[in-house]
Parts: sequence; structure tokens; C-alpha cells
Amino acid sequence: MDGVQDLIPTFAVIAALAGLVLAYVFFGIVRSADPGSDRMVELMGDIQKGARAFLRREYTWIAVFVVVLAIIIFIALPWGRPWGSIAYILGAVTSGLAGFIGMTVATMANARTAEAAKTGPQLALPLAFRGGAVMGFSVAGLSLLGVAISYIVFHQWLAVEDSLQVVTAFTLGASSIALFARIGGGIYTKAADMGADLSGKVEAGIPEDDPRNPATIADNVGDNVGDVAGMGADLFESYAGSIIAPIALAGFAFAGLAIQGPALVFPLAIAAFGMLAAILGAFTVKAKPDIESKELSKALTRGTKVAAVITVVLAFVLAWWLFSGVEDVENWLGFPIAVVAGLLVGLGIGHLAEYFTSDHYKPTQDIAKTSQTGTATNIVAGVATGKLSVAGSVLMIVAAIGVAFFAGQWAAPDVPEAGTYGIALTAIGMLATLGVVVSTDAYGPIADNAGGIAEMAHLDPEVREVTDSLDSLGNTMAAVAKGFAIGSAAVTALALFRSFEQAVIAAGGEIMMDISQVDAFVGLFIGAMVPFLFAALTMQAVGRAADKMIIEVRRQFNEIPGLREGQVQAKPDYARCVDISTQGALKEMVLPGSLAVFVPIIIGLISVNALGGFLAGALVTGFAIAIYMANAGGAWDNAKKYIEAGNFGGKGTDTHAAAVVGDTVGDPFKDTSGPAMNILIKVMTIVSLIFATAFVDFGIFS
Amino acid sequence: MDGVQDLIPTFAVIAALAGLVLAYVFFGIVRSADPGSDRMVELMGDIQKGARAFLRREYTWIAVFVVVLAIIIFIALPWGRPWGSIAYILGAVTSGLAGFIGMTVATMANARTAEAAKTGPQLALPLAFRGGAVMGFSVAGLSLLGVAISYIVFHQWLAVEDSLQVVTAFTLGASSIALFARIGGGIYTKAADMGADLSGKVEAGIPEDDPRNPATIADNVGDNVGDVAGMGADLFESYAGSIIAPIALAGFAFAGLAIQGPALVFPLAIAAFGMLAAILGAFTVKAKPDIESKELSKALTRGTKVAAVITVVLAFVLAWWLFSGVEDVENWLGFPIAVVAGLLVGLGIGHLAEYFTSDHYKPTQDIAKTSQTGTATNIVAGVATGKLSVAGSVLMIVAAIGVAFFAGQWAAPDVPEAGTYGIALTAIGMLATLGVVVSTDAYGPIADNAGGIAEMAHLDPEVREVTDSLDSLGNTMAAVAKGFAIGSAAVTALALFRSFEQAVIAAGGEIMMDISQVDAFVGLFIGAMVPFLFAALTMQAVGRAADKMIIEVRRQFNEIPGLREGQVQAKPDYARCVDISTQGALKEMVLPGSLAVFVPIIIGLISVNALGGFLAGALVTGFAIAIYMANAGGAWDNAKKYIEAGNFGGKGTDTHAAAVVGDTVGDPFKDTSGPAMNILIKVMTIVSLIFATAFVDFGIFS
Repeated sequence: MDGVQDLIPTFAVIAALAGLVLAYVFFGIVRSADPGSDRMVELMGDIQKGARAFLRREYTWIAVFVVVLAIIIFIALPWGRPWGSIAYILGAVTSGLAGFIGMTVATMANARTAEAAKTGPQLALPLAFRGGAVMGFSVAGLSLLGVAISYIVFHQWLAVEDSLQVVTAFTLGASSIALFARIGGGIYTKAADMGADLSGKVEAGIPEDDPRNPATIADNVGDNVGDVAGMGADLFESYAGSIIAPIALAGFAFAGLAIQGPALVFPLAIAAFGMLAAILGAFTVKAKPDIESKELSKALTRGTKVAAVITVVLAFVLAWWLFSGVEDVENWLGFPIAVVAGLLVGLGIGHLAEYFTSDHYKPTQDIAKTSQTGTATNIVAGVATGKLSVAGSVLMIVAAIGVAFFAGQWAAPDVPEAGTYGIALTAIGMLATLGVVVSTDAYGPIADNAGGIAEMAHLDPEVREVTDSLDSLGNTMAAVAKGFAIGSAAVTALALFRSFEQAVIAAGGEIMMDISQVDAFVGLFIGAMVPFLFAALTMQAVGRAADKMIIEVRRQFNEIPGLREGQVQAKPDYARCVDISTQGALKEMVLPGSLAVFVPIIIGLISVNALGGFLAGALVTGFAIAIYMANAGGAWDNAKKYIEAGNFGGKGTDTHAAAVVGDTVGDPFKDTSGPAMNILIKVMTIVSLIFATAFVDFGIFS
Repeated sequence: MDGVQDLIPTFAVIAALAGLVLAYVFFGIVRSADPGSDRMVELMGDIQKGARAFLRREYTWIAVFVVVLAIIIFIALPWGRPWGSIAYILGAVTSGLAGFIGMTVATMANARTAEAAKTGPQLALPLAFRGGAVMGFSVAGLSLLGVAISYIVFHQWLAVEDSLQVVTAFTLGASSIALFARIGGGIYTKAADMGADLSGKVEAGIPEDDPRNPATIADNVGDNVGDVAGMGADLFESYAGSIIAPIALAGFAFAGLAIQGPALVFPLAIAAFGMLAAILGAFTVKAKPDIESKELSKALTRGTKVAAVITVVLAFVLAWWLFSGVEDVENWLGFPIAVVAGLLVGLGIGHLAEYFTSDHYKPTQDIAKTSQTGTATNIVAGVATGKLSVAGSVLMIVAAIGVAFFAGQWAAPDVPEAGTYGIALTAIGMLATLGVVVSTDAYGPIADNAGGIAEMAHLDPEVREVTDSLDSLGNTMAAVAKGFAIGSAAVTALALFRSFEQAVIAAGGEIMMDISQVDAFVGLFIGAMVPFLFAALTMQAVGRAADKMIIEVRRQFNEIPGLREGQVQAKPDYARCVDISTQGALKEMVLPGSLAVFVPIIIGLISVNALGGFLAGALVTGFAIAIYMANAGGAWDNAKKYIEAGNFGGKGTDTHAAAVVGDTVGDPFKDTSGPAMNILIKVMTIVSLIFATAFVDFGIFS
């Protein structure tokens, strides 16, 4: 049987390639669709040009950072010469590639979806989904490919511990891209969005996505660089991290035990079969010609459900195959239970987010109601709702941690860290079917962009209605995807945190994360502060960039004759606005991004105990703030939509005006600061794990 | 020399009585001042009646809670029969008494200050200060009296450990009052304030404090029950906690060592001499007849400065006297250094708060500037500024913790926990001169109320100008007082947290707060969530109560003929609004208050390791949120004032309207949720310490 087990990493490579083939097939389908009128092709071209220009400049910046860190890894870490540095660069390049592919197809699918929507949703839905699926399967395929190849190559060449460090360096490469893509993309998209809304909708009194608004192309570019490329890089990293976390733990903690062999390949096996399940799921997403609006949502989520069920069944089969009869394992059932616990809690966090942010439920309706007494009460209600939503998510995640821990211990009672291995498996439960989950998530911005193009190209209003209905469908799945992203971030960070401890010990150091001791406590205190600082910096960045955008839009309305009135010869300077968002985002992402990488290194060089406390503090507070900001922002957004649907007086009332302010405040909450938080907590943990050896060798108090 | 040391607790009783005598003398001075016209006396009477009615009903509710907890202490804790329960009730009663006295004199001083302001600030300033000083010295005097008497009585009757538990029960009594007074008072004051502002200023378009507004008396009552009684109870508890934390630690950790004797009395000695210094300081606050506006601020803060300098000098003298030549002590200088580190960091946090919230500095001016692009950018800027301010405060507090820890270890290298004793001493450094600090803080609401009465009694506009200038003076000192309150809360909680660990061990239990273990980590995660939940619940409570107030004010404007127009025969129903605030506050304080007390008990009964993590998580996150909410609220408030002073267009512009919304959002941030946070973190730690024995005896996993 051992021989077959050895083939699992190779099988993972094959599964990854299958995912990439699917992405390529879907790419062909999208490309062959009709992009519509000349005007639509022109708009699509503008958006694509803006998005590419941003990505090119962003990647240039990040490349500098990546080279610097690769050199540091080379110099400071004995195992990093040269393989650690190479794996690190490989992680960065594949992640960047996945983001580029996803964004390219997303900016192709937008006009085509608008064109397809002319005949109703039954063609537009699968097209938008397949556009998203190119992204989803590129992300999942490239991520799994990179992890599996790194594992195969370095596992054969290097000692187990060194090879795991090298594989972890691959994840750090992906994290570096994710960090900057999330921050930069998040700043870009919200600076453009706030700028377009405040100067266009509010001041000039013209509707959203109106072609007269000079910031409108930048706004649509923002959807692609933030929601598509940023989210893709985020989940690329989450996926890689969720596979590597249990592998790294098994490598460090199960040394010399019979369980180590199967424990190393089990995560890869689930990921490989999960990929196949996701591919199967993706093919189930289609819409019948006479499909009703209610059925659309089911059609869209069918793929995810099918994939999840298959993966759960396979997790049990794989665990039985790999773990039953292994010397240290008493109850092989414990491990798939941990996987399922993760899946359930990921779904739970997502559905809780839906409860707090969907206008079908009381919290968001209450925010809408409160808007009747003004803007201030709307804001207070949104903040309170967001903070309230933290409690349930935390209780669910600690329940998953608890169940997985005991399941892991029950599975292998005499193996130290078997419980932690169980915790690490929960993240795989959430992300095994990533391909199809991201497809459904990336679908949202494509439908959104299609609506923008329909508006700007003056298509029939019915087209916009179709794209709007498609857009709103994506919300539930987007909530679930966010639940998976943040939930997996927490448990992955926890597992990596434990690997960090093991790595310090393996490097001959001592570590004691007792928070009743002053060093760990001081670290905890500083760690809990960092997410606040990070949120402040990213929000201020959005504010500054949006301010510049508003001034530019005002200038164009004042200086370009006939623009406000919509005269044909008056052309807004879209490119200038795109440029402002680009420059603002790039300039502003440097400080928070560098902070995330260098602060843990500095603290680790002072004291590893303090670093342990620091990571734990940042993890728990970062999780809470991420949930708070995402849900507050979502609730404000949908409270506004609820009023726009005709409740409490509908559009044009003071109540609506109050809700619009809430929505705008929520923008940087839910799309910049909040989503960047889960990368923050992981990146800091991975950096610590990678540099553990250096802390032991060069640390002051270590 | 030992004989003289034994007299220190008695000396503390004498110093406490001296403080109370000063309070009585100042009370006489305030009472003998002229309260002004019949109209002013009537208004003062209305405010006093409303405040008393609230306090009476609030205390009735709290009494039920106190009796329940006293019975639980009696039943569950062997050492609690009956002395623990009695000390607990004593703490509650003295704290309640201090709040009652302070509020009574504050509601007498308001009209008298308005009357005195007719001739300018030189009479009004000392009068308002003395009104505040009655509060300040009642709080400090009763608190020190209670602690010192509990110490003397129980220390003679009981074994050291039991006597310390009993003395700690006194603090828990004070904490119970503080918790509910802060939450209830905070909800009351902001429900009334938001209700009055939104319905009166915004909807009906009448100025602040206009007698036509039915909520205006409730608003003025709110200043007294929230800012005076709530703040007094808060600092009563902080002061008692700061004295008892090092005593409890010395009792548990220094058992059998020569250092224990002096270490037990040193905190009492500093508190006693600090009280005398504060009395001296209070006498230096006066204003010359020809005083200039600039000089007023100096006159007001002179008292605090004088008292602080004297206390620092005495801390060195006392440490030399008590610790030099003691067997375990190698460097007696270490202990006063810890005290001074605390004082400096308390001042530092206060001044940092001033930097972030005063309109003399860039952050607040930037918020004002951002208001030019609308409400949404104002809100985002305020949130970002508040979150940004967390970093500096955390770095300062960890610096104090670090310095004090090393100073303590340096002082007594061979004594375990000497470093933690140093940390505990920092809180005393901040609060030793509490009497005069509170005087300057309570002065603010008196000046504010005086302005309200001047407005409602239609006094000459110049009187209002004088009271406004007095009011704005208080802001810097209020920031410093808040810095002391939150800073001391953090270090006191940390010291009590360490005592909790010792208490578990002393009770025969085991505890291991290693956050790399799943139990402590899960506790940490839940603990970090609690401040978010607490903030959500208190903010929602304010929102609900304010909504009811707005509806009532609207009803009165609609149903009482001639009210809006200001016809003489049209009388608003003030009492109804007062009643709405009262009922809302009382109903809403129960859930968050109970949460703070019962959640740690439940977790402790499951696992003390988890409780350790829980307390640490709540402490670090609660501190960060407290700073964030207080400073965001303060910055919004002053950004509005900055615009009102004529910047960016001044009053009546859209910019001003945006800033008004920010100010209203900031109200529950800075006056309800934020200030309640430092009690939350302490109350949970004290409850854990008190019930440590029960956790060991009855705990599931302990």
C-alpha cells in the first residue's frame, strides 16, 4: 500500500492539471461568445486596459519586494540557499499568474455577459459563471500544482524539516502577492467607488455607472482588480496554506512515528479529490431556457453543493485507506470528522454572515428602519450589528477548533500534536472544493461589471434588470466564500502558529507562550493592537485616494464644457481617473504591507516568546475585526438596497439618503480593511514560521 | 521601625478622613453660593429631581444584583462566610454613596456656576472646580477609607490569604456599582443627548439646550448621571483596585518572605500621602480677578501638577523608608521607579488622546477637512483616526509594563513575582492623586450644565460664553483623567490576573496559561470577542432608547399647541422624557452587566486555563477598543467644534452638517461603550480572582 501512497503527490499534480484544463476550456467558451456592439467592446477595452495597467504596475512594485525578501531568506536562513528563495519566488509568480488570468477573463466576460443578458438570464448565468470558473480553477489548479510539485521535488532532495520549510516558503510567496493584491486592490476599488459615488451620484446628481462620470471606468476597473484579482490571490494563498499547514505540522511533530507517512499525504489526497469533485460540480451549473428567477440561485449553488457532498464522502474513504491499521492510529474516523467539522463551520460562518447582512433578515432591516431617524443612527446601528455578529462566528470557530482537536486526539491518543493536526485539517474541509467556490464568488463582479457596461452602452433597461438579478444571486455564495476565507485563515494560522513553536524547538531554541509571563503578554498586547493599526492605515489610504478622485471628477465637470449636461462631444478623461486610483493604491499599499512582514521579524529577533503572544493576539483580534468590518459593510449595503426596493419610503427620501451614507462608509470596511485582515494574520504567522531558525540563531532574548 | 509601619493603614484612614473633611468644606462653600433667579432654581430643581429619581431606581436594581452576588459569595466560597459577603456589600454601598454625594453637589453647583459666570470666569472657575472637588474627594476619601478599614479589620481577624480575598471582595462591590453605573449612566446620557439633538436640533431646527425641547432636561440630567455619577463610580473602583492589586499580589506571592510586610503597606502609604498631596493641590486652584483666558487652563491644572510632583517625591522617600535594608530587597529604587513609570505613561496616554482629539492638532483638523467631501468621509476618517490612536497607547502601556517589571525584578531579584509587583505599582502612580484629578474632571459637566441653565433661563449670551470657555478648559484634563482610568485599568487587571493565577495555586489547583494549548487558546479567542459583543450591546441599547426619545419629542411637538413656536403657555413635558431615558437605561443595562459577571464564572467552572486565556484576550482587546472608541468620539466632537469656530465655512454649511453627524455617532462611542470597557476588563478579572477557590473545588476540567 505504501507504494500507492507515494503516488498521491503525483496524483495531486494530475488533478491540478485537470483543473487547469477545465479553466482553459471555459476560457475558450467565454472568448467565443459575442461581446456585443462596438461601444460595448470599447468600454470593455477601457476596463481591460485600466486593469492590466494597474496589475502591471502593481506587480512591478511587488517584484521588488519579492526579490528583497528572497535575498533575505537566502542570506538569513541556512536551508534557504537556494531552494527556499526559489520556492518563495515560485509561490509569488504562480499566484500572480493566477490573478492575471482570472482578471483577463473577467474583463472579457463582462461585455459578453451583458450581451447574453439581452435574451434573459438563461445564457448570461452560465457565461458569467464560466468566466468566474476560469478564475476559480486557475487559482485552485496553479496553487495545488505549485504545492504538489514543491512537495515532490524538495521532499526527495532535502531532509524532511528543511523540505517543509521550503514548501512553506512557497506559501509565503503566495502570501506576499495576496497581501499586496488585497491591500492595493482594496484601496483601488474603494477609492474609485467612493470617488465616483460621492462626486457623481451625490454632488452632480447623475446615476451610478453613468458614462458622464469620469470615475466610472476606474470604478469598474476596481471591481476587477479588487474583487477578482485581489480575492483570487487571497484564496490562492488560503488554499496553499490550508494544505501546507497540516503537512508542516506532521513533518515537525510526527517525526519518527508511523503516522507521519499517511499524515503527510492525507491533505494532498483530499485536495486532489476535492479538485475533481469541484470540476464535476462546475459542470452541473446551467440554466434551463424557461428558468424562473427563484431557480437561478439554486442553479448557481448546485455546483458547490455537489462538490461538497462528494468531498465529504471521499474524506472518509481516504482516511480509512490511509490511516486504518496504522500503528499509532486508534480511530481513523477522527480525522475525517475534523475535516467535516471545518466544512460545517465554514458554511456556518458564511450563513451567519448572510443572516447579519441580507435584507431578508431582521438585523439589516433594522438598520434600514433606523435610517428613518437619520444618518447618525444608521451608522451606529451598522457598527453595532457588525460587532454583534462577531460573537456567533467566534463561538463557531472555537467549536470547530474544539471538535477537531478532540477528534484528532481520539484518532491517535498517544501521538503528541494529533489534536493540532485535527485543527489543521478543518481548513482543508473548508477549501477542498475551492475551484467551484471561487467560480461562484468571482461570478459576482462579472455580473456587476456587465451591469455597468449595459448602463454605459445605453442598452435596454431590461438588460440591466437581468444583470442586477444575476448580481444579487451571487451575494449568498459570496458570503459563504468569505466565511470559508476567514474561517480557514483562523484555523490555518493556528496550525501554522503551532508549527512555528515546533520549528523553534527543532532549531534548538526554547519557547514558552505563557501569557502570565511578561514577555508573552507584552507580545499579546502588541499583537492585539496591530489589526487596529492595519485597519486605520488602509481606511486612511482609501480616504486619501478617494479625496484625490473627488477633486479630479469635480475638476472635469467644471472644466470640460457640456460634460454634466451629457453633450455628445464632451468626453470625460477616464484614463486620468484610472491613473489616480492606480497611483493612490500603489503608494498606499507599501506601509501596511511592509508592516505585516517586518513587524513579526523584528519582534522575533527580540524574543520568540513575545512573538508567540504577538501572533496569538493578532490572530484573535484580527479575526474579530475582519468579521466585524465585513458584516457591518454588508449590512449597510443591503439596508440601502432594502430601502431602494421601496421600503420606508424608497429612493429619494431622507431615509434613503441616510442609508447611502452608511453604504459608502461600509465600502472600505467590507472591501478593503476587512478582507485584508485574514491575509494579515496568516502572513505574519508564515513569516514567523519561515524565520524561526533565524530567531533562534540571532535573537536577543531567545 | 516595624511598629511605625504597622500604623500606615491607620494613617491611611486619617488621610481618607481628611479628604472627606475637605469635601465637606467645599460642599459648604458651594451651598452658600447664590443659585440665581427663580427660573434658574426651578431648572436646577428639575435636573436634580430627574437625577435623583434615576439614581434611586438604578440603585434599587443594583441592590438586587448585589444581594444575589453576596449570597453566591457566601454559599460558594468558604472564606466568604460572612466577611467576604459583608466586604462586598460594603464596597457597593460606599461606592454608591460617593456617586450620590458627587451628583447631589454637581446638580447644586450648576445654577450657582451660571450665576457666578455673570461677573466673568474668576468666580465661576473656582466654584465649578469646588463642586467637582466634592465629588473627587468623596470618591477618593470613601474609597481609601473602605480599603484601609477592610485591610485593618480583616488582616487582624483572618489568615493573610483569606483576608486578601475579603479585601478583594470590597473591590468587587465597588466594581459592581461601577459596572452598572457606567453602563446605565452611559446609556441614559447618550439616549437623551442623541434624542434631544436629533429631534430638536436637526428636525425641529431649534438650538441646543432650548427650553422648548422636551428632552433638554433629560439631556442635562444625563450629564450628571453619566459623566458625574458614572465616572465617579468608575474611578472609585479603579482607585480601590489599584491599591488592592499590589497588596493582593504581595499577599499571595510573597508569603513567608521579609519583603511581604513592607510590600503590603507600601501601596497604602502612597495612597495616603497622595491624598494629602491632592488636598494641597486642590487649594492651589483659584483665579485672580483680572485673569486672562489663557491663564485659566493653567489655574485649573495647577492642582494636579502640584499634587503629582509631591507624590513622586514622596514615593521615593517612602520606598527608601520601607524597603531599604529589607533582606530580599537589593535596590529599593526599583519600586518608586515603577510608580513613576505608571504616572508618566498615564500622562502620556492622556496627552496622546489629546493629540488625537483636540482641534489644535492635525488628526482632528483632518477630520474637519474631510467633512468637506461629505458625511461618509467624515465617518471613515473618524473611525480611522480612532483606530490609529490605539497603537501609541498600546506601545506606551507595554513600555510601562516592561519598565515596571524590570524595575521590580531589579529591586528584588530573588523574589518571585517582584516584577509583577512592580507592574501593579504603576496603577498607583496614575491614581495616587485621584482626589484632585477627579475634581478637574467632574468640573467639566458642571460647567456644561451651567451653560445649559444659562440658555434655558434666557440669561445674557455673555454668560453662556463664559461657561463655554470654562467647559472647553476641562477637555485636556478630562483626556488625562481618561488616560489614567484606562491605563490603570489595564495594569490593574494585569496584576489581578496574576493574583488570580496565584489564588488558583493557593487553592490547590493547577493552571497553565500557555496559548499554544487548545484550552487557553479557545479562552483567548472568546475573550477577544467579548469587548466587541459588549460594545454592540451597549450601542444598540443607546440606539433603542434614543429612538423612543425621538418619537416622544416628535409627539410633544405635534400634540402640544404652540410648543415649537415658543408660546409662553406651551409647556413641554420634561418629566416624561426623563422617565423614558431612565426606563431605557435601566432595562438595557441588565444584559451587558450580567454578561460581565457571569461569563467568567461559567468559563472558570469549565476550565481555569481557558479562563486565563479569556481574561488576557478580553484585557488586550478591551483596552484597544476602549482607546479606539474614546478617541474616535472625541475627535468627531472637536472636529465639529473646529468647524463651528469658523473653519471650512463654519456653521450652516454642508461641511458642518456632516461633522454634526460624526459628533452624534461619536456620542455612544466615547460616552457609553468606550468608558464601560475598562470596567468590563477589571470586573471580569476580579470576579475570576474572587471565585478562584470555587473553580478549583467545583470546576469540570480544573
